Amino acid sequence: KVLFLPETSITGNKIGVVRVEGVISSSERYIKLLNQLEKNKSVKAIVLRVNSPGGVVGACQEIHDKVEEITKKKPVVVSMGSVAASGGLYISVPATKIVANPGTITGSIGVILQTYNVKELADKWGIKVVTVKSGKFKDLLNPFKEPKKEDLKVLQELINDSYMQFVEAVAKGRKLPIEKVKEIADGRVFTGRKAKEIGLVDELGNFERAIEIAKELAKAPDAKVYEVKPKKTLLQKLIGEETK
Amino acid sequence: KVLFLPETSITGNKIGVVRVEGVISSSERYIKLLNQLEKNKSVKAIVLRVNSPGGVVGACQEIHDKVEEITKKKPVVVSMGSVAASGGLYISVPATKIVANPGTITGSIGVILQTYNVKELADKWGIKVVTVKSGKFKDLLNPFKEPKKEDLKVLQELINDSYMQFVEAVAKGRKLPIEKVKEIADGRVFTGRKAKEIGLVDELGNFERAIEIAKELAKAPDAKVYEVKPKKTLLQKLIGEETK
Amino acid sequence: KVLFLPETSITGNKIGVVRVEGVISSSERYIKLLNQLEKNKSVKAIVLRVNSPGGVVGACQEIHDKVEEITKKKPVVVSMGSVAASGGLYISVPATKIVANPGTITGSIGVILQTYNVKELADKWGIKVVTVKSGKFKDLLNPFKEPKKEDLKVLQELINDSYMQFVEAVAKGRKLPIEKVKEIADGRVFTGRKAKEIGLVDELGNFERAIEIAKELAKAPDAKVYEVKPKKTLLQKLIGEETK
Amino acid sequence: KVLFLPETSITGNKIGVVRVEGVISSSERYIKLLNQLEKNKSVKAIVLRVNSPGGVVGACQEIHDKVEEITKKKPVVVSMGSVAASGGLYISVPATKIVANPGTITGSIGVILQTYNVKELADKWGIKVVTVKSGKFKDLLNPFKEPKKEDLKVLQELINDSYMQFVEAVAKGRKLPIEKVKEIADGRVFTGRKAKEIGLVDELGNFERAIEIAKELAKAPDAKVYEVKPKKTLLQKLIGEETK
Amino acid sequence: KVLFLPETSITGNKIGVVRVEGVISSSERYIKLLNQLEKNKSVKAIVLRVNSPGGVVGACQEIHDKVEEITKKKPVVVSMGSVAASGGLYISVPATKIVANPGTITGSIGVILQTYNVKELADKWGIKVVTVKSGKFKDLLNPFKEPKKEDLKVLQELINDSYMQFVEAVAKGRKLPIEKVKEIADGRVFTGRKAKEIGLVDELGNFERAIEIAKELAKAPDAKVYEVKPKKTLLQKLIGEETK
Amino acid sequence: KVLFLPETSITGNKIGVVRVEGVISSSERYIKLLNQLEKNKSVKAIVLRVNSPGGVVGACQEIHDKVEEITKKKPVVVSMGSVAASGGLYISVPATKIVANPGTITGSIGVILQTYNVKELADKWGIKVVTVKSGKFKDLLNPFKEPKKEDLKVLQELINDSYMQFVEAVAKGRKLPIEKVKEIADGRVFTGRKAKEIGLVDELGNFERAIEIAKELAKAPDAKVYEVKPKKTLLQKLIGEETK
Amino acid sequence: KVLFLPETSITGNKIGVVRVEGVISSSERYIKLLNQLEKNKSVKAIVLRVNSPGGVVGACQEIHDKVEEITKKKPVVVSMGSVAASGGLYISVPATKIVANPGTITGSIGVILQTYNVKELADKWGIKVVTVKSGKFKDLLNPFKEPKKEDLKVLQELINDSYMQFVEAVAKGRKLPIEKVKEIADGRVFTGRKAKEIGLVDELGNFERAIEIAKELAKAPDAKVYEVKPKKTLLQKLIGEETK
Amino acid sequence: KVLFLPETSITGNKIGVVRVEGVISSSERYIKLLNQLEKNKSVKAIVLRVNSPGGVVGACQEIHDKVEEITKKKPVVVSMGSVAASGGLYISVPATKIVANPGTITGSIGVILQTYNVKELADKWGIKVVTVKSGKFKDLLNPFKEPKKEDLKVLQELINDSYMQFVEAVAKGRKLPIEKVKEIADGRVFTGRKAKEIGLVDELGNFERAIEIAKELAKAPDAKVYEVKPKKTLLQKLIGEETK
Repeated sequence: KVLFLPETSITGNKIGVVRVEGVISSSERYIKLLNQLEKNKSVKAIVLRVNSPGGVVGACQEIHDKVEEITKKKPVVVSMGSVAASGGLYISVPATKIVANPGTITGSIGVILQTYNVKELADKWGIKVVTVKSGKFKDLLNPFKEPKKEDLKVLQELINDSYMQFVEAVAKGRKLPIEKVKEIADGRVFTGRKAKEIGLVDELGNFERAIEIAKELAKAPDAKVYEVKPKKTLLQKLIGEETK
Repeated sequence: KVLFLPETSITGNKIGVVRVEGVISSSERYIKLLNQLEKNKSVKAIVLRVNSPGGVVGACQEIHDKVEEITKKKPVVVSMGSVAASGGLYISVPATKIVANPGTITGSIGVILQTYNVKELADKWGIKVVTVKSGKFKDLLNPFKEPKKEDLKVLQELINDSYMQFVEAVAKGRKLPIEKVKEIADGRVFTGRKAKEIGLVDELGNFERAIEIAKELAKAPDAKVYEVKPKKTLLQKLIGEETK
Repeated sequence: KVLFLPETSITGNKIGVVRVEGVISSSERYIKLLNQLEKNKSVKAIVLRVNSPGGVVGACQEIHDKVEEITKKKPVVVSMGSVAASGGLYISVPATKIVANPGTITGSIGVILQTYNVKELADKWGIKVVTVKSGKFKDLLNPFKEPKKEDLKVLQELINDSYMQFVEAVAKGRKLPIEKVKEIADGRVFTGRKAKEIGLVDELGNFERAIEIAKELAKAPDAKVYEVKPKKTLLQKLIGEETK
Repeated sequence: KVLFLPETSITGNKIGVVRVEGVISSSERYIKLLNQLEKNKSVKAIVLRVNSPGGVVGACQEIHDKVEEITKKKPVVVSMGSVAASGGLYISVPATKIVANPGTITGSIGVILQTYNVKELADKWGIKVVTVKSGKFKDLLNPFKEPKKEDLKVLQELINDSYMQFVEAVAKGRKLPIEKVKEIADGRVFTGRKAKEIGLVDELGNFERAIEIAKELAKAPDAKVYEVKPKKTLLQKLIGEETK
Repeated sequence: KVLFLPETSITGNKIGVVRVEGVISSSERYIKLLNQLEKNKSVKAIVLRVNSPGGVVGACQEIHDKVEEITKKKPVVVSMGSVAASGGLYISVPATKIVANPGTITGSIGVILQTYNVKELADKWGIKVVTVKSGKFKDLLNPFKEPKKEDLKVLQELINDSYMQFVEAVAKGRKLPIEKVKEIADGRVFTGRKAKEIGLVDELGNFERAIEIAKELAKAPDAKVYEVKPKKTLLQKLIGEETK
Repeated sequence: KVLFLPETSITGNKIGVVRVEGVISSSERYIKLLNQLEKNKSVKAIVLRVNSPGGVVGACQEIHDKVEEITKKKPVVVSMGSVAASGGLYISVPATKIVANPGTITGSIGVILQTYNVKELADKWGIKVVTVKSGKFKDLLNPFKEPKKEDLKVLQELINDSYMQFVEAVAKGRKLPIEKVKEIADGRVFTGRKAKEIGLVDELGNFERAIEIAKELAKAPDAKVYEVKPKKTLLQKLIGEETK
Repeated sequence: KVLFLPETSITGNKIGVVRVEGVISSSERYIKLLNQLEKNKSVKAIVLRVNSPGGVVGACQEIHDKVEEITKKKPVVVSMGSVAASGGLYISVPATKIVANPGTITGSIGVILQTYNVKELADKWGIKVVTVKSGKFKDLLNPFKEPKKEDLKVLQELINDSYMQFVEAVAKGRKLPIEKVKEIADGRVFTGRKAKEIGLVDELGNFERAIEIAKELAKAPDAKVYEVKPKKTLLQKLIGEETK
Repeated sequence: KVLFLPETSITGNKIGVVRVEGVISSSERYIKLLNQLEKNKSVKAIVLRVNSPGGVVGACQEIHDKVEEITKKKPVVVSMGSVAASGGLYISVPATKIVANPGTITGSIGVILQTYNVKELADKWGIKVVTVKSGKFKDLLNPFKEPKKEDLKVLQELINDSYMQFVEAVAKGRKLPIEKVKEIADGRVFTGRKAKEIGLVDELGNFERAIEIAKELAKAPDAKVYEVKPKKTLLQKLIGEETK
């Protein structure tokens, strides 16, 4: 049923698979793959396989927008693997349908910024930092300086703004009222089973189940499935499948 | 009797072997191999050779579901090697028959989540973490923060849910009542011999014994045995059999 | 719509893309690419994709001047990715239009010079530095010497001068009065959404939105898009796309 | 007399040699070699060259069973090198005859499980482990937790069970009464000379002596001797004989 | 306008570019390149692109003399990048014209000699150095010996002599009176803008501005620009442009 | 006189040379070489070049037995290099004649077993070892346990037995009474010159002298000398003579 | 004027260049190059480019003698680069003429022997050295022993003897009275300018000036200049010019 | 005069050069080279270039004997480089003539044995060594045991014996009375000049002077000089001359 053949060798209707694995640091690689599937007329539906604990806000938004845009033309079904939380969830919410394993770890709706402060350590060792700067906030989160109230206020504003954008996206994608989303958007994590109860996930099932749903939505029961991958360099071919 | 020949060079009935070794971090590699055996009409039965101390819940569930699905079409016999515990047992329970060595280490039914907390160490050295976040639980298990009661409660819920899923799978796979499974599902380990007494294992024997059972169940005494392996890259061929 | 084809294989109107990623340490690589697009008649507009936290003042100025010079001949549209702050903003302000994601991190207008001072540490360990020099300030910011008032005064002058050059560039590029720029030029960071409110950004949107705006400004709706990249050496081809 | 020629170039009766060196972590490599010799009609007897301090219980049992099975069809003679103790002895006992050097180190009949406990060290440094688990024994031998009585009891049962399996195997293989075996099965080591006195070894002699005995038992005085080795990859050929 | 073509493929008048980047440890590489441009009749003017914080006195003097010698035959224009200070300025002052970015960091006229002294550290650890020597000053700046007054006097003489040579070169090159140069030769740094005010720099502009000035001085408006680089070895071609 | 030619290119009588260098960990490599010389009819005598401080008892015994066996058919002359002590002497004593340099270091007749005990260190750091075992002596010489009287007694028996085997071999090989050997078998070392006086060495001379003696004993004055070496892999040829 | 062409491609009179760079540890490489120039009739004069802080006494003497020998047949001109001190000066003094940059660092006439003594450190850590030796001075400068008066006296004699040899060479080479040389031979360093004043250097100028002087002395104004280099191995060609 | 040509390309009389560099750990490499020169009729004399601080007694003796043997057939002249002391002198004394640079470091006649003793360190850390041995002196110089009087006495005997062998060789080689040699054989070092005065060296001169002497002694003024080197492997040719 699911046969992983190079795209070129398949004729007739197709279901395209894109795999998002690990921390999302830039959107470029995924936008390119989604573009190819969006453009390819013979691709009737897309399955987004997500195995990611999250990533950088800007990059996740760009993938989220791309998915949202595609769903206007063809169904996009998300299949959540072992973990699809924080940014992993952000890029999934605009999909037509979300399928997860009962044991999948998801949720963690929220934004966080963490840096080390080693002022005390540096003092103990006798290491100082000499700073010559133009503006008060130019050395925000300077690891060698006690973080001042004002500094934290500026950053908290930035975080709250990004947080609201995340909440709005979940509400819009999962057709849930903002208040309802806020209740579960305190950063907590859920199993796939729990996520279904609170409306974050449509169905419990594995990757093959997601493929079946994609065929149903695309009304193309005999469509063939192929995974679109970035063009591999000579060395990646030599060393092996996916060199992370 | 057991001859390891490349599949292509074998005609007539076949027994397919899939080897699951080490920690299970993703299901993809094993699902692909099981798919090939499921699809291949000439494969009358499958032997799943398990040498694994466990792995990530989501990945184990996906392999468990796949095995369960295949058993509806053709017999699947598990041959437990030196260790087949926790996730190693999870993927075995749906099999038609389970064979283990008397000295195999199995059991350890349960789910666990462990992280380091270095708050005290950091204080000693004078290292702090500055966190700016949107929701209370966004930095669950923050290694630089005393774990609060509330945090642990959220995680315990997640663990209990996954744990029940594991217990239900064992009960269903080994046709044991839930209460009976709970008694032995406190994480303890058993030898193969003990496991047979408490119903987790059907027969004591090595890998070749499992092959014989597979032939009996498949009523294909003269079936040939071949191990299905992922397509090897040039370098893996050059360096050697299995580059983990 | 956006197809990444090698330039040579595209005929008719073109939109050229230049990618500026990471810390900007030298201008040479980007000036070469911008030059090619400036010279190439068939390129009707340029999209500058910026994913950078800043860089060395001299290098940023050289790229800023180049962009400013090109806007006199053809429209230049900036598409801000996850982060485009400090020097990343410096090179963007002269563009015809600036597009950012709502979650993009930008701002941080200002100049900073930071060095370590290990005098105390060295004394503890018993390590001295013997300096024989010709002029008082020849060993400015000597890490083994308490920074003298006079030393800091000399450096503050240098910083203030560079800072004013940055503020002037923002005012000129974003057509904002100097005073208005000074208010937000205390080094603080903004989300893309906030930046639009205070006039640093023209529109909220992803990379594809920036391409559309470039076509509109160039009145070349069917122009093809290609990314110009530095000539790759044999090894870079072998190892992969962009070897940073 | 003993000529190490590639098997293919030898005609007529053969004595097959399998070399077991170092710690035994998995049985697969040795089972494959023993299978080839078992299947090959022209191999009249097998010499098992053992230079091993032991290994994992499950793996040793699988090799032990294989040797026991072969002795029903053709004589298997063990030649003990410098050390053949614990698991090295376990796989030898089912052999038809055991030959050892007077200075060989053997014995150490028993099973052991050792792990580090760093609770005290972690407390000193201020490192804690946060554990969220489903069952009491799920984190048996948790290095950051004082080992509780109950935990040790569970493990001791496992060890005693495996230990009895080892003792039973020695008794059966060396045709010694269980009580007699228990007397020398307190883990102590013996020289080859001592082992002969207490019935663990049949004869004192080197590898060539073992070959002679194999020929006598197989009544094939002019049989040729060849060592069967796993198929070497290109790189192993390039780098050298046995790349462990 | 500025096209970087291999020299051989250009006919007619040429402007030659030499790039001096990083710390100047030996003159040989730059003297070879400057020689080629000096000898090549079709090269009407030279642009020296300087991105250097300085270097060894002897090497800087050799490049300074070479530049000074060439200016007698054809104009030499310096284009200062991000930093052109200390030795970077030394090699620039004899040029016909000096162009800098407003934010370039230059100045730092002076000479310095710094070594570590670890006498105290060595005493703490109990490490001594046994020295057997012929003359009092043979172990000048011995890191294991308190630097004696006499030692420092000898070195200060050496530094003052080299310092005067630097001041004389600046005065001669920039046609400034020695006293005027001494005022700004206390090692302080300036922005490009400040340097123009005190006569160290002729014009503010980027690399392309420097090319234009070179064409004007050479009265060769349509001269083609090429960068002369050291002959690259096979490996440098393979790995990439400039392997430092 | 001594010409090192590949064996194949030599006709007529031959003297075969085998080189034993460094610690003797396994006998296999040397037994193979000695076998070839023993079998080759044209080899009239063997010179064993020994440069070894000793090795594992079992391996040394196997080489000793091989040499003893060959001396029944053809003379074996040992040439001791810089050091031939402990196991290096063990394999030499059965030779027909032993030649050493006056400065060779030999003797050290005895057996030793040394292991580290870090109980105290572990206690200081707070590291314990949790041991679950079947028999009292299963964790002999456990580095984390004070070595008990009983443990040492078991090991001393093992050592004394191996020691007596060494003494018996020296007595038999050098035709010396056991008591005489015991006097010098307290582990002390001798120069070659001293060793000749106490009967451990026959003659003082270098490697060429040993060749001459071999020819005399073999009554083959014009025999050609060749060194037999293990078949070299491609890489060893590439990298150099002997890759240890 | 100075063209670096491979020797073979040059006809007519030649000036040969030998480059001595870095610490002089062995003379062999330089003697070979000087020999080639000495033998080659068409080489009318030699320029020795010295960039060296010194080296081992024996090696410097061998190069000094070679230069002295050649000056009897053809002029040798030294061109001092950034540094030509201690051994770098030793090999220069016999030259016909010495040219240096005003800023060259030279002088440091003298001999020094330095070793670490870690007796105190070893005592602190509890590390001793057991020495068994034949003669009192066999472990001169033993780092684990307080250096005894007698030891230092022996070494001081050695140093004084070598020192006198250095002074005599300078006096002979630079035609200066011994007393005059002793005044400046206390190990101090001079700038090139100072060295000219005290007679150690003939003229101030760079490498090209030295070439001119060589042509004048050789009365061969149109002689071509080539650098003689050691035959490069394949890898050195591949990796680059001079692999030190 | 001295031309380094591959031997094969030279006809007529020859002077053979062997280079002994660095610590002498085994004699084999040098004996092979000396053998080739001894056997080659056209080689009229041998120059031994020695740059070595000494080595293992046995190996030095074997080279010493070889040189002594050759001097009976053809003259052997030693040319001492920067250092030829201890074992470097041992192999030189039997030569027909010894030539040294005035600054060569030689002498250090004596034998030494040094090992570390870390008993105290181990006690501090709480590390013990458990030793089970057969004879009193089996663990001579055990680094974890205070060296006992008896142990040192045994070793001192060994050293004195080797020392006497060294003294006898010097006396015989340099035709000096034993008493005279003992006076200078307390391990002290001499310059080449001093060594000539006390009879250890015949003439002061460099390598070329030694070649001349060799020709005179061989009465073969026009003999050609070639250096005999060990056959280089492919990789050594690739990487460079001498891979130590």
